[in-house]
Amino acid sequence: MTQKKIAILGPGSWGTALAQVLNDNGHQVVLWGNIPAQIEELNTHHTNTHYFKDIVLDEKITATLDLAEALQDAEAVLFVVPTKVTRLVAKQVAELLDHKVTIMHASKGLEPGTHERLSTILEEEIPEQWRSEIVVVSGPSHAEETIVRDITLITAASKDLEAASYVQSLFSNHYFRLYTNTDVIGVETAGALKNIIAVGAGALHGLGYGDNAKAAVITRGLAEITRLGVKLGANPLTYSGLSGVGDLIVTGTSVHSRNWRAGDALGRGEKLEDIEANMGMVIEGISTTKVAYEIAQELGVYMPITTAIYKVIYEGADIKESILGMMSNAFKSENEWGQN
Amino acid sequence: MTQKKIAILGPGSWGTALAQVLNDNGHQVVLWGNIPAQIEELNTHHTNTHYFKDIVLDEKITATLDLAEALQDAEAVLFVVPTKVTRLVAKQVAELLDHKVTIMHASKGLEPGTHERLSTILEEEIPEQWRSEIVVVSGPSHAEETIVRDITLITAASKDLEAASYVQSLFSNHYFRLYTNTDVIGVETAGALKNIIAVGAGALHGLGYGDNAKAAVITRGLAEITRLGVKLGANPLTYSGLSGVGDLIVTGTSVHSRNWRAGDALGRGEKLEDIEANMGMVIEGISTTKVAYEIAQELGVYMPITTAIYKVIYEGADIKESILGMMSNAFKSENEWGQN
Repeated sequence: MTQKKIAILGPGSWGTALAQVLNDNGHQVVLWGNIPAQIEELNTHHTNTHYFKDIVLDEKITATLDLAEALQDAEAVLFVVPTKVTRLVAKQVAELLDHKVTIMHASKGLEPGTHERLSTILEEEIPEQWRSEIVVVSGPSHAEETIVRDITLITAASKDLEAASYVQSLFSNHYFRLYTNTDVIGVETAGALKNIIAVGAGALHGLGYGDNAKAAVITRGLAEITRLGVKLGANPLTYSGLSGVGDLIVTGTSVHSRNWRAGDALGRGEKLEDIEANMGMVIEGISTTKVAYEIAQELGVYMPITTAIYKVIYEGADIKESILGMMSNAFKSENEWGQN
Repeated sequence: MTQKKIAILGPGSWGTALAQVLNDNGHQVVLWGNIPAQIEELNTHHTNTHYFKDIVLDEKITATLDLAEALQDAEAVLFVVPTKVTRLVAKQVAELLDHKVTIMHASKGLEPGTHERLSTILEEEIPEQWRSEIVVVSGPSHAEETIVRDITLITAASKDLEAASYVQSLFSNHYFRLYTNTDVIGVETAGALKNIIAVGAGALHGLGYGDNAKAAVITRGLAEITRLGVKLGANPLTYSGLSGVGDLIVTGTSVHSRNWRAGDALGRGEKLEDIEANMGMVIEGISTTKVAYEIAQELGVYMPITTAIYKVIYEGADIKESILGMMSNAFKSENEWGQN
């Protein structure tokens, strides 16, 4: 593939790791962010030490505070900003675009208030004439492993298979592989909702429970998020794939996951505000829990694990009591998600 | 529930943990085994130190070398012997039974040569007049956690829902819960086949790969064992439940799993015969790999992960080359298992 200019909006851990993947593939990558010290550090030292202490990036990767500069001549634009600012950044991009680009995103959340998926926000805010169909990049992927070029396999999902294939070709190499999928609803909702279950798995660990309990809550968590996803139009098979089970395993069983760590800290009795302050990173699962709880109430979907975590986070319920209640209520019978 | 006499055949780690669960519920439990020193230790010291160094069992749990004594007046009989001797023990039980009993098993494998499920073996060897429909007890359950009464949620599966419910009531208490399922084929094949994928996940770890790669192989492993299970008559939803995804998570991500540890050792370059000798426990995933490979060949089911592990174990293929080839071949497209 010939060299392309690609703008990555959001120089967090995942945005930085994806910048390196694209740079490894010979593309010209520019990272856009709004923290001057970080952009300065990226350009001067080629590091992003808030996320990766020991990594020095290739000096061909540049960074800028100027969104217009990032977008100029870019063939593709990747959103990796926190969910809650996606709409704001999309509006800014829409104002500046003067040519058609491939729009991708690699964030995992649902918009508070509107309950919208991120690709819907991008569709709404960026006029059709300036963009492709949105492509969602999602799957089991700790940035900490991708940045050291460990094997990572994820999904590129779009309503337009050609757009997904184009993104697949941009990113794929010997350590990083993408598989196309046209179930955008499934890939996006699975990626967002799995963070709730990761918080629950972490909470069980923080409370002192073991692997048997963890496997049970992940399994039942998968059942309840699939139930909600299907109600929203997802293909249930997507929940058995990389962006469902795969991402849930990575997020629900690994110390690298900030959502799991937030749950673990909750289980050990820490306060949410302290956890968020200490982490210094966005914990998407916290706000996704509220969005999912609201959707479940609205659509009448049974989600005992999500409900338990919601009550702990937003209503001050006792964590031990809620989690144990959740373990009792999460089971009615097996194999029931398709019927609800 | 009133006290019942229950015979547990096979005082391994899981048999011992289940003996304690049943004893906690007030039942009279007798463990049958064929190693005199172990039976003596169980009766004299109430320990089974080969599996549990620090656990002292309730002295009401007894052990015997005499199968007739174990079966006498027993209301239920639980097989927890290695797969390869299940038929032999079933024949002995059939000769000794003089009253009708509930027959359960909690082993996870497929018979070498015949490729039969364990419940089929029990159906064949024990005359119908002396038994209930077979009940399979399976799910995510490290014996090391159940023995310390950590929360464990598993499945009781039988063609006869009443028999499954009876077994559910025998075992259930505040830390141990069973959920009924009538998909015996699904529960049994999932429990057996997941051990192959656990060996693969361990091998990736032994070779030095991280959580992203592990999640990918578990996800694709789930897809290929579901594909085989469906061909054999399983409900695919069972593979998304406790005995599928749940058990795969526990087995594929935990150091407690002997199948994972065997794969890990293979990945680090150890020889299979040394691994088996060091472990001192049956590694069901090794023989299940051969059975599954043969069934897949026969039925024309695409199982790249199973094939790679088979070639390493049985044909001396290089592990690194095979595992990397497996990572390349395991993906054709997402969401395809239902079509194969």
